[in-house]
Amino acid sequence: MRPRLSATLIVAALWGTITTGDDLKRQVDGWRAAHETHIVAQFDSLLRFPSVAADPSGVAAAADYLEGQLKARGFDVALLTVPNAPPVVFGSLATPGATRTVVFYAHYDGQPVTPSQWTTPPFEPVLRTGPLGSGGTVVDWTTAKPPFDPEWRLYGRSTGDDKISEIAFLAAFDALKSLGKKPSVNIKVVWEGEEEAGSPHLADILRTNKTKLSSDLWLIGDGPVHQSRRPLLFFGARGTIGLDATVYGPINALHDGHYGNWVPNPAAMVANLIADLRAPDGRVLIPGFMDAVRPETKAERDAIAALPPVEDELKQEFQIARSETGGSLMDAVMRPALNVRGIRAGKVGGEAANAIPIDAEVSIDFRLVPDQMPDTVRAQVESFLRSKGWTIVTDTPDSATRRAHEKIIKIDWEKGYAAFRSDMSSPAARAVIAAAGHASDRPVAVVPMLGGSVPLYVFDDIFHAPLVGLPVANHDDNQHAANENVRLQNLWEGIDAYAAMMGELNW
Amino acid sequence: MRPRLSATLIVAALWGTITTGDDLKRQVDGWRAAHETHIVAQFDSLLRFPSVAADPSGVAAAADYLEGQLKARGFDVALLTVPNAPPVVFGSLATPGATRTVVFYAHYDGQPVTPSQWTTPPFEPVLRTGPLGSGGTVVDWTTAKPPFDPEWRLYGRSTGDDKISEIAFLAAFDALKSLGKKPSVNIKVVWEGEEEAGSPHLADILRTNKTKLSSDLWLIGDGPVHQSRRPLLFFGARGTIGLDATVYGPINALHDGHYGNWVPNPAAMVANLIADLRAPDGRVLIPGFMDAVRPETKAERDAIAALPPVEDELKQEFQIARSETGGSLMDAVMRPALNVRGIRAGKVGGEAANAIPIDAEVSIDFRLVPDQMPDTVRAQVESFLRSKGWTIVTDTPDSATRRAHEKIIKIDWEKGYAAFRSDMSSPAARAVIAAAGHASDRPVAVVPMLGGSVPLYVFDDIFHAPLVGLPVANHDDNQHAANENVRLQNLWEGIDAYAAMMGELNW
Repeated sequence: MRPRLSATLIVAALWGTITTGDDLKRQVDGWRAAHETHIVAQFDSLLRFPSVAADPSGVAAAADYLEGQLKARGFDVALLTVPNAPPVVFGSLATPGATRTVVFYAHYDGQPVTPSQWTTPPFEPVLRTGPLGSGGTVVDWTTAKPPFDPEWRLYGRSTGDDKISEIAFLAAFDALKSLGKKPSVNIKVVWEGEEEAGSPHLADILRTNKTKLSSDLWLIGDGPVHQSRRPLLFFGARGTIGLDATVYGPINALHDGHYGNWVPNPAAMVANLIADLRAPDGRVLIPGFMDAVRPETKAERDAIAALPPVEDELKQEFQIARSETGGSLMDAVMRPALNVRGIRAGKVGGEAANAIPIDAEVSIDFRLVPDQMPDTVRAQVESFLRSKGWTIVTDTPDSATRRAHEKIIKIDWEKGYAAFRSDMSSPAARAVIAAAGHASDRPVAVVPMLGGSVPLYVFDDIFHAPLVGLPVANHDDNQHAANENVRLQNLWEGIDAYAAMMGELNW
Repeated sequence: MRPRLSATLIVAALWGTITTGDDLKRQVDGWRAAHETHIVAQFDSLLRFPSVAADPSGVAAAADYLEGQLKARGFDVALLTVPNAPPVVFGSLATPGATRTVVFYAHYDGQPVTPSQWTTPPFEPVLRTGPLGSGGTVVDWTTAKPPFDPEWRLYGRSTGDDKISEIAFLAAFDALKSLGKKPSVNIKVVWEGEEEAGSPHLADILRTNKTKLSSDLWLIGDGPVHQSRRPLLFFGARGTIGLDATVYGPINALHDGHYGNWVPNPAAMVANLIADLRAPDGRVLIPGFMDAVRPETKAERDAIAALPPVEDELKQEFQIARSETGGSLMDAVMRPALNVRGIRAGKVGGEAANAIPIDAEVSIDFRLVPDQMPDTVRAQVESFLRSKGWTIVTDTPDSATRRAHEKIIKIDWEKGYAAFRSDMSSPAARAVIAAAGHASDRPVAVVPMLGGSVPLYVFDDIFHAPLVGLPVANHDDNQHAANENVRLQNLWEGIDAYAAMMGELNW
């Protein structure tokens, strides 16, 4: 069946490939149906590496495994690194006669885990018959008979963010090879190992290997597909910069009856700090913070308007009665955000003592939009805090410092990176939109900017090549939280998309 | 040496006893010097019972122990209780010829503990050569030769709050007996087992046993002495009511890039909630909250003015550069307070994930002053929250509730009790001031109201008898926090004070 294309996609399709994409999709689907157990097994192996920042050896082991997988498929491979950074797994495979080179980016590290919050251990993947919240029960995939129910879900840290992209790539490559389908482009792979830590070394590694990484297009395999479950391409992503701050009260916890009202209470101080930074509707109250925000173009506004509404369904799914801002999700994503990731102060519930805590800690991240720069935001935050009477320190204050300054805040900044939005109408962009359309039975959602952060800015700054985001994971994958998971149908569609990008791209 | 008395005390002394108090103090000091190891051993035994609300069997065992101690000293004893309440240890001992009866109140339960925050386990007491923060090292009191250095400190939960009062009572009683000194009053003992849980059953127990507990004076052994290390008598105490509140975000934690700005963030909501309730200078912003606050009398203002200044020293000790309100500590204590005991939301530091948390919890206590009533405060808080758009629930909200209400807050209220300030110039009050003066080489601090809460209001409401607070613990005892401790000199002075109250009170 011919896929239904949106107006944008019909125009874009005129720039599409000359191969018959629908045929390729059907063939890849057939190959996949015969190899589902093998694909899940490979996913399972990759998920068992605890590749999180807290476990450098787990990160290194995952890199070695992926390097081996590329080598086995005939790629020239290398682990690219700079001192103190986890390696980028790099691979390249030339296609005789191809004139274009595409780099496939993904990351193999995951968010930190709090194992006590997980139903099953984060690095011991299990397949379930559906989402945990809907009573999904464990299936033994080693004995289950394919084809698997596409609504089954695989649980484990990094499933959706972002190992699914690597598995989709490897399976799509295997499918093309098995089908005798020669790639249409030269293929390069860049799989990063510290995206969830804010990619502090990525720019260095890319710049050091600039020649090796030259290409005509970057396809960024990260983020979730649209909440409507349509495949999604994104042409930008919010940037990010995070901080962890500690504010200080008395050197020892004090009885809050004897001293409450007189000794400063750091739990109350951190609450006032947050309320100073952020209005209840999410607006950031730091002077100048919005000054650099780039207006949306007409093309971007049109793309947003063409997206199917998802808000009512999401409110049902998330069990919330309102959004912070009242507008659409995409409207909210096009603005910068200040997220409070956590607050720790004293104790609550049965553990609460009638005491003034000694300190309070807050973890914050900013989601930036073009053309906000992380360094500028950092300076604005610090200047604002100083205007509110805070003394900013970078180490735990000593006694003399505590006695000398009325409001002390220790800030530990993440490096962060800027946001990026790219040209949605370049020849490469249109070729990608066309190929994605061929690989899907449903319309593709084309969005100007992803809410989550992907270091697109870094790629653009170094390579000035077209960039398109190609996510695979379901939106309801609990990414960055406990019980992260992917829906098998998303993986299957991801394999279709990757096969199209390797086998059909032409411009 | 004749103690230096303040003007108030010199006047009060005219109403004092006809015995020579200084002689009694010297004799008690002599007895104590010969029995220091025995007194510390008894303290050690009492501290080993984990008498905290989370451990009902520990509470019961402590009650049994204290009952046995009174019985061994010839008291008529009983465990007074009502269903589901820890017992009040009651004892009475008539003095032939005495016309006055004095009840000695203290509590044998302690604040909750977080053992990981303690340097040594909270229920395994150790004696140290000084405060932990000043390098105090552990001493084996079983082999150390008395007299002990009075600056040594005994560490353990409930040392200062409030088992020191029971130990001072028992040692003072033993001293009088050993010295052949007949008490001047009939003695009753009321030792409570759930003061740190807000005394939810105390009124019931007292009312049920009203006749048995009749007296001419209540001496309330709780709280710390003055920060100047002077002995202290208090004539009132702030009341208290606490709450634990949970506010709700999405049913699952969500990626704060994809949803930040659109899905309500409960960590930010709880910060705004606190900022709505409480100004940075500690003022409570709930409409009507201050309406019932009783003005200070001239006698109270005079008593406050006579107190030695402690603010500069406390700032040094607590390592803070300011107070919340700028005024004196006693000025702050005479006002009600809203204390934030703790906040829990998401994760911070290395554990922080880029996620919108599912909920946030805050623990708050109010310190009330006359004539604020807990039920009124509760109603004011709830009315204020409703005016700010909150829907108040008492159980974890179900899906339908979450989807129907924009801002949901679950509140779990403690019962609480009102504040109390009594007449500082009654005959009984003046007799107590005189006896305390005899028992001390230094002026006694006489304060209208203690910052900490003691259920004085409950005693007054039921018995209408004079009430005076007789604390023993040092102010720097970390009460309500980890590493709670008492300084031996405070215990020694407490024994002097209790001996004077049993042996010299006459009015």
